[in-house]
Amino acid sequence: MCNKEQIVAAFKNLQDHICSELEALDGSAKFQEDLWQREEGGGGRTRIISHGSLIEKGGVNFSEVYGPVSELMRKQLQLDGESFYATGVSIVLHPNNPHVPIIHMNVRYFEMDTGVYWFGGGIDLTPHYVVPEYAQKFHEGLQNVCNQYHPEFYLDFKQWADDYFFIPHRNETRGIGGIFYDHLKANESISKEQLLDFSIDLGKLFPKLYSQQALTLRHLPFTDEELAWRNYRRGRYVEFNLVYDRGTTFGLKTGGRTESILMSLPENASWIYNRAHSTRELETIAWLRKGVDWINIQTS
Amino acid sequence: MCNKEQIVAAFKNLQDHICSELEALDGSAKFQEDLWQREEGGGGRTRIISHGSLIEKGGVNFSEVYGPVSELMRKQLQLDGESFYATGVSIVLHPNNPHVPIIHMNVRYFEMDTGVYWFGGGIDLTPHYVVPEYAQKFHEGLQNVCNQYHPEFYLDFKQWADDYFFIPHRNETRGIGGIFYDHLKANESISKEQLLDFSIDLGKLFPKLYSQQALTLRHLPFTDEELAWRNYRRGRYVEFNLVYDRGTTFGLKTGGRTESILMSLPENASWIYNRAHSTRELETIAWLRKGVDWINIQTS
Repeated sequence: MCNKEQIVAAFKNLQDHICSELEALDGSAKFQEDLWQREEGGGGRTRIISHGSLIEKGGVNFSEVYGPVSELMRKQLQLDGESFYATGVSIVLHPNNPHVPIIHMNVRYFEMDTGVYWFGGGIDLTPHYVVPEYAQKFHEGLQNVCNQYHPEFYLDFKQWADDYFFIPHRNETRGIGGIFYDHLKANESISKEQLLDFSIDLGKLFPKLYSQQALTLRHLPFTDEELAWRNYRRGRYVEFNLVYDRGTTFGLKTGGRTESILMSLPENASWIYNRAHSTRELETIAWLRKGVDWINIQTS
Repeated sequence: MCNKEQIVAAFKNLQDHICSELEALDGSAKFQEDLWQREEGGGGRTRIISHGSLIEKGGVNFSEVYGPVSELMRKQLQLDGESFYATGVSIVLHPNNPHVPIIHMNVRYFEMDTGVYWFGGGIDLTPHYVVPEYAQKFHEGLQNVCNQYHPEFYLDFKQWADDYFFIPHRNETRGIGGIFYDHLKANESISKEQLLDFSIDLGKLFPKLYSQQALTLRHLPFTDEELAWRNYRRGRYVEFNLVYDRGTTFGLKTGGRTESILMSLPENASWIYNRAHSTRELETIAWLRKGVDWINIQTS
């Protein structure tokens, strides 16, 4: 059995687990929790961390919302049915140190009154400076968990991430990608229970992945120029989230809790017209493209 | 006569005029020009000013674009016809001093191969701190020009601006509004020539309005807390432009020149989860609502 009560309990535990791991990793800041309710049904637990020794601003949000399907939902999500149920955990972390990447994770479960259900989710990494060894480690971690569930998950979901986390008006990927999946249902090769396990295993992988990224990089010294570049790259993150991210734009337009949705935006972001980039900055931009085989790249 | 050659010449002159007035007003920075061409037809003159004594970042852009109507244009702009022609001048200025408002202006002309044409435009003001006397002066200036063309223009276009420059997910107007209009065609009470004159008169009013706002306020001293509030309010400006502004979202999604479109974004913007506001900040937020009769408010 794997009903929504069990899924929601697993997602709440996952939120608790990730928050406690991230507090340990940060070493100084603690999450602040806001409980909220949704008029049409459901609510959430928004947990925000700020001004830590590692994390400048971040959120680890749980929500469980349900109710009638609105016209906009029917149209944009192409939903059949009268009422929906959705629960998930969403994370974005913006670090202080420009050498540490921004990271995002989301796992979600959707169910209609018609009985149709699906899982969705993803993890992606947005380094301010791309370091091939670290990008490779990140993708290897994702590949390991994917391979435990289906031999095609990693490559399929990696390509989906390349396509999803893309900023067409910049002709750049948001970062070095990761995995993204949606509308995942049980079939002859995977059960609903296994799909839930996959979501939870990804969730548990998340703090490990971030710790691997942050462990050494967080101690690297940085200059004002590197901070300025970090803020400029954060501008791209804002552009992606406000213009293209489906969860964000849909949430804002359907009366979601604005402050919980926009926890994904950084404390500071910057825009410079036709900015002149350094050689090192151009090297990072050159990595921001679809189809890079991170697992097999040459690392020095 | 009032054909597109005359309109485009008038818009180019307007861009020149506004740039020279703004350079005089700023007193130190000069506009840098980038000429660009559009593959499908047309191009533009992007002019950017930065790190002036008054203006931290701003653009005064002219463009003239034409070509076949794409599927997206047909759908989103509900255009009938095979090819279009569009020209306009767009301005956004972000000042250094938090006591000086952000200002925006746009005048545009659209023509289809079917012979249908229309004018559109608007001017709106986004003070970081709303000062009723200054808001009133701004609206009086707009009302004066509107009244020279049609007795209903000001009230109609003021209401249109309240509705257009609105951020639903914040339940806030972007600022104190101004005027906004679209699909304006000649009729028994106004000719095409007069509509062009109206656009140009608004454009010429623009530097006067901004100079009136900036004249005294630019010399007020400011604190770090006021700068932080300025950056936080700029975050709202980014949210409006990237989520709702039709010119921005349409331009980004149809292959417009990204750097010219996003000149409207500030050099720095900030997002703080559930920020605690001061009494003075709350007073400004209380003004950010539709339907304020700025012409007749009590000013001290």
